[in-house]
Amino acid sequence: MSEDRYFSPDPAQRTLARTLYQQVQHLPLICPHGHVDPRIFADEFYSFGSPVDLLIIPDHYVFRMLYSQGINLEALGIPRRDGAPVESDHRKIWQTVCDHWHLFRGTPTGIWLRDELRDVFGIEAKLNSANAQMIYDAIAEKLSQHDFHPRRLFERFNIEVLATTDAATDTLPHHQAIRNSGWSGRVIPTFRPDAVLNMDTDNWRQQIEKLSDVSGVNIIGYKTFTEALAQRRAFFKTMGATATDHAALTPYTELLSKKEANAIFQRGLAGTADANEIRRFTGHMLIEMARMSVDDGLVMQLHVGSYRNHNQAIFEQFGRDMGADIPTATEYTRNLKPLLDQFGNHSNLTLILFTLDETTYSRELAPLAGHYPVLRLGPPWWFFDSLNGMQRFLDSIVETAGIYNTAGFNDDTRAYPSIPARHDVWRRACADWLAGRVMRHILDEDDAAELIVEMAYALAKRVYKL
Amino acid sequence: MSEDRYFSPDPAQRTLARTLYQQVQHLPLICPHGHVDPRIFADEFYSFGSPVDLLIIPDHYVFRMLYSQGINLEALGIPRRDGAPVESDHRKIWQTVCDHWHLFRGTPTGIWLRDELRDVFGIEAKLNSANAQMIYDAIAEKLSQHDFHPRRLFERFNIEVLATTDAATDTLPHHQAIRNSGWSGRVIPTFRPDAVLNMDTDNWRQQIEKLSDVSGVNIIGYKTFTEALAQRRAFFKTMGATATDHAALTPYTELLSKKEANAIFQRGLAGTADANEIRRFTGHMLIEMARMSVDDGLVMQLHVGSYRNHNQAIFEQFGRDMGADIPTATEYTRNLKPLLDQFGNHSNLTLILFTLDETTYSRELAPLAGHYPVLRLGPPWWFFDSLNGMQRFLDSIVETAGIYNTAGFNDDTRAYPSIPARHDVWRRACADWLAGRVMRHILDEDDAAELIVEMAYALAKRVYKL
Amino acid sequence: MSEDRYFSPDPAQRTLARTLYQQVQHLPLICPHGHVDPRIFADEFYSFGSPVDLLIIPDHYVFRMLYSQGINLEALGIPRRDGAPVESDHRKIWQTVCDHWHLFRGTPTGIWLRDELRDVFGIEAKLNSANAQMIYDAIAEKLSQHDFHPRRLFERFNIEVLATTDAATDTLPHHQAIRNSGWSGRVIPTFRPDAVLNMDTDNWRQQIEKLSDVSGVNIIGYKTFTEALAQRRAFFKTMGATATDHAALTPYTELLSKKEANAIFQRGLAGTADANEIRRFTGHMLIEMARMSVDDGLVMQLHVGSYRNHNQAIFEQFGRDMGADIPTATEYTRNLKPLLDQFGNHSNLTLILFTLDETTYSRELAPLAGHYPVLRLGPPWWFFDSLNGMQRFLDSIVETAGIYNTAGFNDDTRAYPSIPARHDVWRRACADWLAGRVMRHILDEDDAAELIVEMAYALAKRVYKL
Repeated sequence: MSEDRYFSPDPAQRTLARTLYQQVQHLPLICPHGHVDPRIFADEFYSFGSPVDLLIIPDHYVFRMLYSQGINLEALGIPRRDGAPVESDHRKIWQTVCDHWHLFRGTPTGIWLRDELRDVFGIEAKLNSANAQMIYDAIAEKLSQHDFHPRRLFERFNIEVLATTDAATDTLPHHQAIRNSGWSGRVIPTFRPDAVLNMDTDNWRQQIEKLSDVSGVNIIGYKTFTEALAQRRAFFKTMGATATDHAALTPYTELLSKKEANAIFQRGLAGTADANEIRRFTGHMLIEMARMSVDDGLVMQLHVGSYRNHNQAIFEQFGRDMGADIPTATEYTRNLKPLLDQFGNHSNLTLILFTLDETTYSRELAPLAGHYPVLRLGPPWWFFDSLNGMQRFLDSIVETAGIYNTAGFNDDTRAYPSIPARHDVWRRACADWLAGRVMRHILDEDDAAELIVEMAYALAKRVYKL
Repeated sequence: MSEDRYFSPDPAQRTLARTLYQQVQHLPLICPHGHVDPRIFADEFYSFGSPVDLLIIPDHYVFRMLYSQGINLEALGIPRRDGAPVESDHRKIWQTVCDHWHLFRGTPTGIWLRDELRDVFGIEAKLNSANAQMIYDAIAEKLSQHDFHPRRLFERFNIEVLATTDAATDTLPHHQAIRNSGWSGRVIPTFRPDAVLNMDTDNWRQQIEKLSDVSGVNIIGYKTFTEALAQRRAFFKTMGATATDHAALTPYTELLSKKEANAIFQRGLAGTADANEIRRFTGHMLIEMARMSVDDGLVMQLHVGSYRNHNQAIFEQFGRDMGADIPTATEYTRNLKPLLDQFGNHSNLTLILFTLDETTYSRELAPLAGHYPVLRLGPPWWFFDSLNGMQRFLDSIVETAGIYNTAGFNDDTRAYPSIPARHDVWRRACADWLAGRVMRHILDEDDAAELIVEMAYALAKRVYKL
Repeated sequence: MSEDRYFSPDPAQRTLARTLYQQVQHLPLICPHGHVDPRIFADEFYSFGSPVDLLIIPDHYVFRMLYSQGINLEALGIPRRDGAPVESDHRKIWQTVCDHWHLFRGTPTGIWLRDELRDVFGIEAKLNSANAQMIYDAIAEKLSQHDFHPRRLFERFNIEVLATTDAATDTLPHHQAIRNSGWSGRVIPTFRPDAVLNMDTDNWRQQIEKLSDVSGVNIIGYKTFTEALAQRRAFFKTMGATATDHAALTPYTELLSKKEANAIFQRGLAGTADANEIRRFTGHMLIEMARMSVDDGLVMQLHVGSYRNHNQAIFEQFGRDMGADIPTATEYTRNLKPLLDQFGNHSNLTLILFTLDETTYSRELAPLAGHYPVLRLGPPWWFFDSLNGMQRFLDSIVETAGIYNTAGFNDDTRAYPSIPARHDVWRRACADWLAGRVMRHILDEDDAAELIVEMAYALAKRVYKL
């Protein structure tokens, strides 16, 4: 595989990109946002299971593409909600994946898996029907080795810090176990309270009861609700958290009076809050989370725009995270104004915005981040965590917001062994983009040499207070 | 004219693009969607008329650009609804076009006509005021030759199959005549029932009467209406159709009960349906068309987003298709959900989506097509059937949906002799795009060699069941 | 600094771009729209003050970026509304700017200031903390020279015509003084009546009184209001104006009857018009302005989509134009239809559209301008007056609208000494873009040689009737 992969075809730009890339190629990985399960680090001898357990069944990027071409999720071993049998022969599943490997041509999933097989597992061959079983064996063999336990990979991957994403009601036993083990790897939690802030969560009232239990605050109204949240934030901080994360369909925010907020909360407890009240309450709680961040210094992340579980039949049969989350057009300028009116100029808040609507890059997000001191722009997210996505992001954002109002990279993945490949794609994309700016004499080489370190490493560390 | 036209300036990418292009340059043309008049094939000796009859008067791409710079449609020979006289001297019209040929610099229309004049008519010169009459003569001379009859061009163009677009009430006499003639050219109809599904069509009730007549089903309500539609679909299938096509302002879908659907239908017959009912009925009928496609296997196409006849004065004076159709922002994620809830996972449906809102490529269409097994994405349509349009399409779609969830190319044209030029632009754009992926080591050359055949030929044939 | 700056890395394209650029590098500057204060030309010996007075305090592009990274506006010498003290040591302010100069890496502001310092002030060094004071001295020394008076710069910049932007109630004393001075520089006004057309302007009723005063028309209702506007337009024409300019949040237009218009106007005078009436009245007045342009031939400009003064605290403390104007999604197809229904086909109207929503380029603006004879598209505006912005504009617009439905360049700036740098970026971007089209054999070199002159000079002059 070429050392110049993902760089521009132009020979001069490519040479420059390579030089920039080599400056950061071996820097430690800062992973400030993602979905790796902390459990894998709690047990020193945790096993990933089979190659399919590791690479296919948990990765909705992989199986959604196969599903889109008519392969049933059952045939890929995805468990059904009703417990009905699904394919359990992992060799057969792997064969199906390899038989259809052409579907991933030109996709980030294809790139990540190729790079990961090569760099983590030492497999240079291109997947196909003929070599499927041989490669299955090769991966399985590696997975049985001590060097492939999660902690060993953490060290080999040169991860400086990895943040997980955890419910507000999580007591963080795995993080505690990691600490108690004396292992030096830095794995920290992130406070993600969606399930208690969004009243339309399944079993919201049970979530509130659980929040009462774990916080020791008896939640009987809005005041005790916010006290419990503050208590949990403080607990997460003691466990190393530096950030919170919030997901919503839209970035709608609205400041409610405490009286109004309590009235809606009470209707929520009584099960009588309507859709508009639920929306307003979530919008208010985003402002309240910003207020708490001003107090406790936790960096606030906002991921919006995904219509979750769009495929009703798949949701009913298989549940969430089945590759059926579809983006929607998103509006930030008006929706964020109430929050920014409250805290947009505050020196103790950092709010990192993510989008699934690329049209907002140049129209709304860059102008907002290029003005408000609290705002930073997260890297291209989800479908846009890709070579073209990164180029569009940088081309659209930087002229208005500059590099320093961005937040570096995060891999946002649950596919743990793909982490180095993902960071590598970002580092290469940034090196090539900067090289293109230098070729056009927009930046000089000194600027580019500083900026590649910022983009690959320093910005994420600084913005997330790591 | 350079053999490397439309390829990237980079010499290495260009060489690779040329190699890929040469693999598909001479493959037959698959034309699964377009607006060529079947009449031209019904008569073996059909004459196109003058160069202006062929190239200017039927082509709203050409005359809209001239109109936008102050040249009246009358001066271009476009017939008026009121029958008032318009320019009838075709040499004078041709001179006007050539006097303003600079307006087409950098446009696909300019490219197509240039390539068509060279490759179909053997004219290498660039159009200008001085050579206008000489070129008129040269085209006219060619058009008088036997080799320029439509069937001969069909063979010379190496068209494997050409689908026309035909009203639900069309009895397809020209397709019948083609069959009866014994000519081997494959010209098939496409079932396009907009005029009977959209109650706001001019003379909708007359359309329904006509549908009654041609189907032999006396349409007295929703049930008989759907029976008549099913009858027509079956008839189109017997005539070779493999697809339906549907146009609407938005992709709104909604499942009505049969009772509701009938109630609105009855109000439509009575002339009392309001705008919202009309919209809901069309949205319901799209789902009903999907249901019928599950039954009869016809591939369903959906072209949405055009605000038709935007220029009121031009519409009143000249009618439809006068270059005054303007795109609007379009939403797919929510609008298509009711249809997808019904049939999104069905193995016997193929639904091909087209858009005039490029923002939906990466935000909605690629994520939808990268999940739902029934969905495929049509090529860049209308204004985006252009070099930049194709590059933006591929750059935005492929990373999320892959190549195999696209539907290849279709020319969608009524300008018959421009068909080879249009396919050639697509084949060159794809070759160059793939070459760029190879240069960046995203694809290898073997992948690219397979994909260029898919994009140029095989995908369209397979997706449209041809 | 490379003579090839801002051109593509490809050596062949770069050579071609340089050749094209050199054809227009020294052509006079046409400045048909901008915000330079005419006062600076009224006094032959006008002084710009300190480097900070000239380059920082009036330029919200510069200080918004510093503000976004936590530097208070007070520390940059921006005057507060309440008169509270702000930093008055301009050397200290300049030091702060230079200490943070890295924030402007990759931004147009960074490019313009670099090019301006070099080409206007002869300063080759890159700004940094160490050289800040030395460069301050160098700029200050230049500013003290006779050659740096605004009129001398006008001549040195080779400005053929510069249009200012002036309120409808402005009596244009500075323009009169310029005329009376006998100086040959052509500085003309532009009629911008927003403050009297938009009833939600601060002090709208006072604006109407002022309009009564300056027009000599006693405004008692809609009829006298339009008479006063017509009188002012005629006055602006006598002072050399060739254009009007209009800003609004959206391009909403609606034709009201005179009776309705008068009823709303009366409620406006009484202070009882509601938000919807205000919106409808503005939408009506845009049509009325088009009608007057048909009469008097003034070219009409429409700048829409900016949510002004988004940061409430900054607005309260510092007022308008503080870098807190944020774009919003904009819809043209439906909004402009009422205006176009009235005047879209009229040979005596030119309406130039500007946008802050790049998604409308290919979806709405190019199709509209590629059909309606009255429409032209203004160059990329504000945040998009940048290298990437220009490339996206040309890539998205030209294939559908052609070059000849664009309106060339305007710098739209209040930063007078940056004018040559801004035009130079445009000329280089166009040369490179055309070179790319030639490399791909879309255009030939003769076309490109003509088009570069159109884009750099002739289109703006012709479309604005200069």
